[in-house]
Amino acid sequence: MALVKIIEYAEASPEVKVVYDDIMKTRGVEWINNFWKALANDPKQLARVWAQVKQVMAPGALDPLVKEMIYVAVSATNGCEYCTFSHTAGARKKGMTDAMFMELMAVVGLANETNRLANGLRMPVDAQFIP
Amino acid sequence: MALVKIIEYAEASPEVKVVYDDIMKTRGVEWINNFWKALANDPKQLARVWAQVKQVMAPGALDPLVKEMIYVAVSATNGCEYCTFSHTAGARKKGMTDAMFMELMAVVGLANETNRLANGLRMPVDAQFIP
Amino acid sequence: MALVKIIEYAEASPEVKVVYDDIMKTRGVEWINNFWKALANDPKQLARVWAQVKQVMAPGALDPLVKEMIYVAVSATNGCEYCTFSHTAGARKKGMTDAMFMELMAVVGLANETNRLANGLRMPVDAQFIP
Amino acid sequence: MALVKIIEYAEASPEVKVVYDDIMKTRGVEWINNFWKALANDPKQLARVWAQVKQVMAPGALDPLVKEMIYVAVSATNGCEYCTFSHTAGARKKGMTDAMFMELMAVVGLANETNRLANGLRMPVDAQFIP
Amino acid sequence: MALVKIIEYAEASPEVKVVYDDIMKTRGVEWINNFWKALANDPKQLARVWAQVKQVMAPGALDPLVKEMIYVAVSATNGCEYCTFSHTAGARKKGMTDAMFMELMAVVGLANETNRLANGLRMPVDAQFIP
Amino acid sequence: MALVKIIEYAEASPEVKVVYDDIMKTRGVEWINNFWKALANDPKQLARVWAQVKQVMAPGALDPLVKEMIYVAVSATNGCEYCTFSHTAGARKKGMTDAMFMELMAVVGLANETNRLANGLRMPVDAQFIP
Repeated sequence: MALVKIIEYAEASPEVKVVYDDIMKTRGVEWINNFWKALANDPKQLARVWAQVKQVMAPGALDPLVKEMIYVAVSATNGCEYCTFSHTAGARKKGMTDAMFMELMAVVGLANETNRLANGLRMPVDAQFIP
Repeated sequence: MALVKIIEYAEASPEVKVVYDDIMKTRGVEWINNFWKALANDPKQLARVWAQVKQVMAPGALDPLVKEMIYVAVSATNGCEYCTFSHTAGARKKGMTDAMFMELMAVVGLANETNRLANGLRMPVDAQFIP
Repeated sequence: MALVKIIEYAEASPEVKVVYDDIMKTRGVEWINNFWKALANDPKQLARVWAQVKQVMAPGALDPLVKEMIYVAVSATNGCEYCTFSHTAGARKKGMTDAMFMELMAVVGLANETNRLANGLRMPVDAQFIP
Repeated sequence: MALVKIIEYAEASPEVKVVYDDIMKTRGVEWINNFWKALANDPKQLARVWAQVKQVMAPGALDPLVKEMIYVAVSATNGCEYCTFSHTAGARKKGMTDAMFMELMAVVGLANETNRLANGLRMPVDAQFIP
Repeated sequence: MALVKIIEYAEASPEVKVVYDDIMKTRGVEWINNFWKALANDPKQLARVWAQVKQVMAPGALDPLVKEMIYVAVSATNGCEYCTFSHTAGARKKGMTDAMFMELMAVVGLANETNRLANGLRMPVDAQFIP
Repeated sequence: MALVKIIEYAEASPEVKVVYDDIMKTRGVEWINNFWKALANDPKQLARVWAQVKQVMAPGALDPLVKEMIYVAVSATNGCEYCTFSHTAGARKKGMTDAMFMELMAVVGLANETNRLANGLRMPVDAQFIP
């Protein structure tokens, strides 16, 4: 039940297989998840999105686990079921414990609450917060 | 230009002043931002929301700076101007550099992009992601 | 600073004036707010949207004040500044007190919080909740 | 598993059947989808929403296929599963190819990404963009 | 298929059982829904969120049924499936009829429509709406 | 009033100037809008996001004006003020008339309305819509 064909490795074009291979190698796994198999309907988009994920989620000024948890926070806020499952799995693989996940959810819940209090009460931004 | 009165310290009831004092003491600052001054129109709500923020944002399984950055991620995703300004200021105070902020935005942007690719293509959640 | 021309009464076409007149008569006011003045760039859309608002917001199974507060709840959730201001004004005109507004915000905030806890933890819907 | 009764043609009131008949005639199909069968619990709302869809989605300044793709873009952005399935089917019926659908998703994904970069970085609107 | 363990009463810690007991007593039911069973993975968060729900949803300046319908309005706007089912059930238990539910949906739909018209046309807030 | 420094051409690093030059050349304009000047705080991110926009928004299976209007539809749905202004200006430059813009808004409004009716009534997806 997807809106496009799920393209398995065996039936993928060489252009797609190159990306699939790089995903598996980079992540140290031997399977491809459905997100990429769906994007493979447009091989250029598959390559572009994967290149982005690879670049943005690599170690940098922020820790990879922190990045993965931020991904979960955004996905839960947007109500994206697929992304919440896939990035929670990703965060756990990088070391997120149950206690960390529950605390992450507490922050996400609170932020969503106070975002609406602020958007509803419409107080001006304090000068002290403006750089 | 707010939808409720902004209640300054000088005119606050004793019940509100207790919360204001605790906010300033906990944060080590000598001013109250407009969010709390607006919530003060309902002293019980002010006390309840502040108690929550204090509890949820305290050190725990996650680092306070990480929590503050998650707050910024949610606020930017929801488009809450007030919260984006206030929590970005909060995160900077806790040590977030420009490089960390830009990288945080990169993750937030990417997550919002792939959330919609997943929500648009509607591929099923892979069995491997389900605990 | 709007993306279309704000069409004032004096310069409006007869087709638009008919709607403007009905808005003022229905609401018992002598001015038109900017929302309608912007929609007037497409007179058929102006007439269609106004007809809808008139029908949906009329007394029915729900009280008009309750409907107006639901409108505020949705607008704050979506972060629509214009709508939050206009419908809060509308709700106050229909009798919403400051205490009611603050309590409305408390419910909106809480619902936004628990919505994300549910969307993040992804527990199945209990059979008891399915009609 | 719906929150209201799904009202089939055979059991519908004459008022509802009139709308069902018009939907089938307008679309050249011989079945009614669940969206309308659920709305039929309030026959006036069914008639009102159908009248709107019929009017707004008709050919006008924009091509019907373009409108249908815009509908998909909004539905994927909002994470509405039902609407994403129904309007993607609608767009395909009007001529959207797989290549067009994948490109649509690419734009939707990118827009959602840059929307959050803008909402997070909070740069002012350039004067050149203000009409 | 949840992202954390669903903690049943029999296996719950004494700290969790206290909250479960209070939920059942307060609501006059003899079962606990999955939302709380998932939150129970963090007993302090379970206690905190329940205390909030109990306080915010209690009778006050707004009627409990009105509050429950506002909860449904926010949940439908956010696309939270779990919350839409659970709070619609809650509202029905408090007296919401089918006619009230359909009318609630009409207001929610309309508000979401005009929120985007306002956010797209970007007309300024009228001075008359600013308190 | 932005959360990062707005980096003007004159003070930009050579790495940033290369991107700025390409933006101006590609668009046939002689100025850089604030979105890019803010992203320039992270030159790699500036280059990455610009490369994406350039690739995704180029002519392909969809017409560039259609893509620009889809961008506006998403931006209005998300309530992104900056993006709504910038992409409406972009769409107008590519030929969008006032009539097309108003009709675009009508579709965006309607989609947001019916998205919530579907998310609130929770009817199952019809088998006919599943490819």
